[in-house]
Amino acid sequence: MNSIEPLIYNAWYIAAWSDELANNLIGRTILNKPVVIFRDADGKAAALEDRCCHRGAPLTHGKRVKEGLECGYHGLVFNGVGKCVEIPGQKDIPNQACVISYPVVERQHFIWIWLGDRSKADETEIIDYPFFSEPEKCPSRKGFMEIKANYMMGIDNLMDLTHVGYVHNNTIGGDPKAHSNADMTVTSTKNGVLMERWLLDCKPPPTFSRSVQFHGNIDRWQEFEYVAPSTVIQWSGGIDIGKNAQENRNQEGFHFRIVHSVTPKTEGSYYYFFGIGHQHRVDNPQVTEDLYQENVATFIEDGAIIETQQERLELSPDRPLLTIRNDEAVIRCHTALQRMIKKNNMH
Amino acid sequence: MNSIEPLIYNAWYIAAWSDELANNLIGRTILNKPVVIFRDADGKAAALEDRCCHRGAPLTHGKRVKEGLECGYHGLVFNGVGKCVEIPGQKDIPNQACVISYPVVERQHFIWIWLGDRSKADETEIIDYPFFSEPEKCPSRKGFMEIKANYMMGIDNLMDLTHVGYVHNNTIGGDPKAHSNADMTVTSTKNGVLMERWLLDCKPPPTFSRSVQFHGNIDRWQEFEYVAPSTVIQWSGGIDIGKNAQENRNQEGFHFRIVHSVTPKTEGSYYYFFGIGHQHRVDNPQVTEDLYQENVATFIEDGAIIETQQERLELSPDRPLLTIRNDEAVIRCHTALQRMIKKNNMH
Amino acid sequence: MNSIEPLIYNAWYIAAWSDELANNLIGRTILNKPVVIFRDADGKAAALEDRCCHRGAPLTHGKRVKEGLECGYHGLVFNGVGKCVEIPGQKDIPNQACVISYPVVERQHFIWIWLGDRSKADETEIIDYPFFSEPEKCPSRKGFMEIKANYMMGIDNLMDLTHVGYVHNNTIGGDPKAHSNADMTVTSTKNGVLMERWLLDCKPPPTFSRSVQFHGNIDRWQEFEYVAPSTVIQWSGGIDIGKNAQENRNQEGFHFRIVHSVTPKTEGSYYYFFGIGHQHRVDNPQVTEDLYQENVATFIEDGAIIETQQERLELSPDRPLLTIRNDEAVIRCHTALQRMIKKNNMH
Repeated sequence: MNSIEPLIYNAWYIAAWSDELANNLIGRTILNKPVVIFRDADGKAAALEDRCCHRGAPLTHGKRVKEGLECGYHGLVFNGVGKCVEIPGQKDIPNQACVISYPVVERQHFIWIWLGDRSKADETEIIDYPFFSEPEKCPSRKGFMEIKANYMMGIDNLMDLTHVGYVHNNTIGGDPKAHSNADMTVTSTKNGVLMERWLLDCKPPPTFSRSVQFHGNIDRWQEFEYVAPSTVIQWSGGIDIGKNAQENRNQEGFHFRIVHSVTPKTEGSYYYFFGIGHQHRVDNPQVTEDLYQENVATFIEDGAIIETQQERLELSPDRPLLTIRNDEAVIRCHTALQRMIKKNNMH
Repeated sequence: MNSIEPLIYNAWYIAAWSDELANNLIGRTILNKPVVIFRDADGKAAALEDRCCHRGAPLTHGKRVKEGLECGYHGLVFNGVGKCVEIPGQKDIPNQACVISYPVVERQHFIWIWLGDRSKADETEIIDYPFFSEPEKCPSRKGFMEIKANYMMGIDNLMDLTHVGYVHNNTIGGDPKAHSNADMTVTSTKNGVLMERWLLDCKPPPTFSRSVQFHGNIDRWQEFEYVAPSTVIQWSGGIDIGKNAQENRNQEGFHFRIVHSVTPKTEGSYYYFFGIGHQHRVDNPQVTEDLYQENVATFIEDGAIIETQQERLELSPDRPLLTIRNDEAVIRCHTALQRMIKKNNMH
Repeated sequence: MNSIEPLIYNAWYIAAWSDELANNLIGRTILNKPVVIFRDADGKAAALEDRCCHRGAPLTHGKRVKEGLECGYHGLVFNGVGKCVEIPGQKDIPNQACVISYPVVERQHFIWIWLGDRSKADETEIIDYPFFSEPEKCPSRKGFMEIKANYMMGIDNLMDLTHVGYVHNNTIGGDPKAHSNADMTVTSTKNGVLMERWLLDCKPPPTFSRSVQFHGNIDRWQEFEYVAPSTVIQWSGGIDIGKNAQENRNQEGFHFRIVHSVTPKTEGSYYYFFGIGHQHRVDNPQVTEDLYQENVATFIEDGAIIETQQERLELSPDRPLLTIRNDEAVIRCHTALQRMIKKNNMH
């Protein structure tokens, strides 16, 4: 199993968070393509190639106008599907006056983009994630960072929690051996992998008891679901013992939910989008903020090791790596991804 | 029409301004060649390959000595035509002790260089530009900046003024539509393109009336002449109405003259040399300085858009671009350049 | 003769100074290979490929533990010969759980490394340099810097002292002509070149007389011995005249000894290791410090010219260079290196 995987074009990726996009323009490179994201005349999220068809200038240097997006070099205006609607100094607009547009779906506070074969863009394949849509039930804060590594190294990092004791030794680490030896079930799903760990009748960690009043020991879980090619949905928490948490987690306790998603910029770099929410003490914005800051601190630690890992793997990408017992989930993730690649090629 | 054009070696380029060169050494990369420019024993401007023939050290790390240029590594001395005239520690100087020299012509405050086939270097082909030679009639200030883009993007920028309303929106822009719709005559010349715009009976812009006392409306012109491969000669100004300005511009009024010249460093970068002079209020150095600063501010805005344009065009240099009505002068410039390339190849 | 030489793998190089390595990890790139240097469970200097066999993470991000070096990503532990001795979460350790190790010899305050064919690593070929082992007889300070140039440019610089008058004009330079015309004997040795210069009955330079009380003029020498592929051993000093210094230098006077060694990182970059000691006024640490600072100042000047020399030579590495009289030692050094390359290939 290698860590560096090829790019998959026929898939939905997070291009931005809804709350990033108002009257501004967002420029991102996704799957090697320069993209500009903006709201069209109707306020609908739209994505165009970030390159004016006239002289090649990046549209991100332009600005939003009433009819759409105005190029900042010579003033051509494009609407949300990339059609030119104004050329300063001339009345007729030729048909070839247009820039490439990409399908975009804004849903549940995510802005998803499709850069592959347009005819295969199926909105029903987009992950359903209702939690952030109801901020009164699951307040959240979203962000992203850029990591100079292949996107699957981000997935590998999330799906092998034994790194927690080593990489996050100074933050959330705790006893490394506990992580390495924890009981874990790993299940392959239709298009990914579900990893679940339960620690029963254990002492609540400081971050848990700082937020929530427990009565003693708790049953604690970590659930990570990889959905190929690029998303990991995390649900972690704890509930007072004796409440049959394993059968029913929808009870009062400490609950946090994170969406992690790796959107490739290139083969060797990605945007790491994360949305961090919680379902306990939903009325306290400080809880949201603390949870966000605490997690971002660990994401920075992950990014640092992942980037140097990429440097090493790039030196000799084909040398085999050693597989160990705790790689089970990671291996299944790569298998799910390979399955997706195969299916894509068969289409 | 593309924007990225090949380099032309058989042509004169500005290597430096005369006032840059005293007892110092100037190191520049021109047409991919490292060049050192200095004054020889007689004070004559000279240009050598910036690479000592002994151990390859750049001569720019040396210093000017009585006999010429002394290498800063082991002290070999070269004269203005690249012949070694001293080797420390030995008396005889072999014939092969020399570095490549390039024809240089210092004239009218320009230092021109020729990096192509020496036998084709014809001084009579150098642009005649008398204005800066008589500072009492046309005081000026010269400068340059480095732009990471193909040199023809600099020419394109100068020869399509419709960008002014968009790129210079915060400085000299004014109403974008006025620029796009202005009447303009474009004429092909022997080795370039002449573009002329007249705005008759119009209000003088603030920068004009700050400098010159007009009696009311003015007749205003903008004249840009492209001389292939790399120079644009600009004459802009305004004269009180009723003085028949279109027939005779050599009258009192607001007159500024700019030489713009793009000297390629590589296919993807150039030096942008500019000399900015004026023929009104020639006794006031503050007018010179203000005009210089005002123009440089817009050149920086141009540089920013041009560099990102280059990034996009480099991604897919062969994709066709859209031609619009206002590209007429730009198209003719590329045609003139192509004509020059053809002629060069036929020689 | 060219300056850019190929890398030689079957040779000992300085990887670090002993006093750099305690409980820390040192990461270096040597001959294009990432290496981590550490002390094993027994305190013995060891060197491994800086790449964990599990997921490729650099081991330099880990830490020293009782049994060896623990990877900072998932906690695998390796001993000094690269064998994995612990995998968190599993008991059995497969044989392939190991990283490449490199022969290391720590001797006389040097840590030498061998990155070539292990079967050819012969410790008896390591330079014997007893001076720094007896700090009470020859106190020293060691350091290194990184130079972006082929390693042989560092050797060329040391073995042609005519540069001193030009490159170090503002520091130790003195009269350039004196250096260029000094009498010099150059002798080829078994695996290198010995260059010796004597200035008899001359005035002691300021740096000499600041440190040592002379009675008048001195006999002064500079001895540089190149030992292929990468080391230059310098012994410079001066002794009062009339003491027959040329026959016997082991007398009171001004004596400094420098080991210069260029360890290639890549074809175009190297670590410049230097150890600077002295055998006069050995009880005064300020003398050691002053000598160190004085030399490092000139090494920085050398580095600057060498890096730009590399830039020029890279542009056209195959163009011939001019050989002059003072290049004699440099030419012999390249000949010695070529002999070593040939011998290596014949093995």
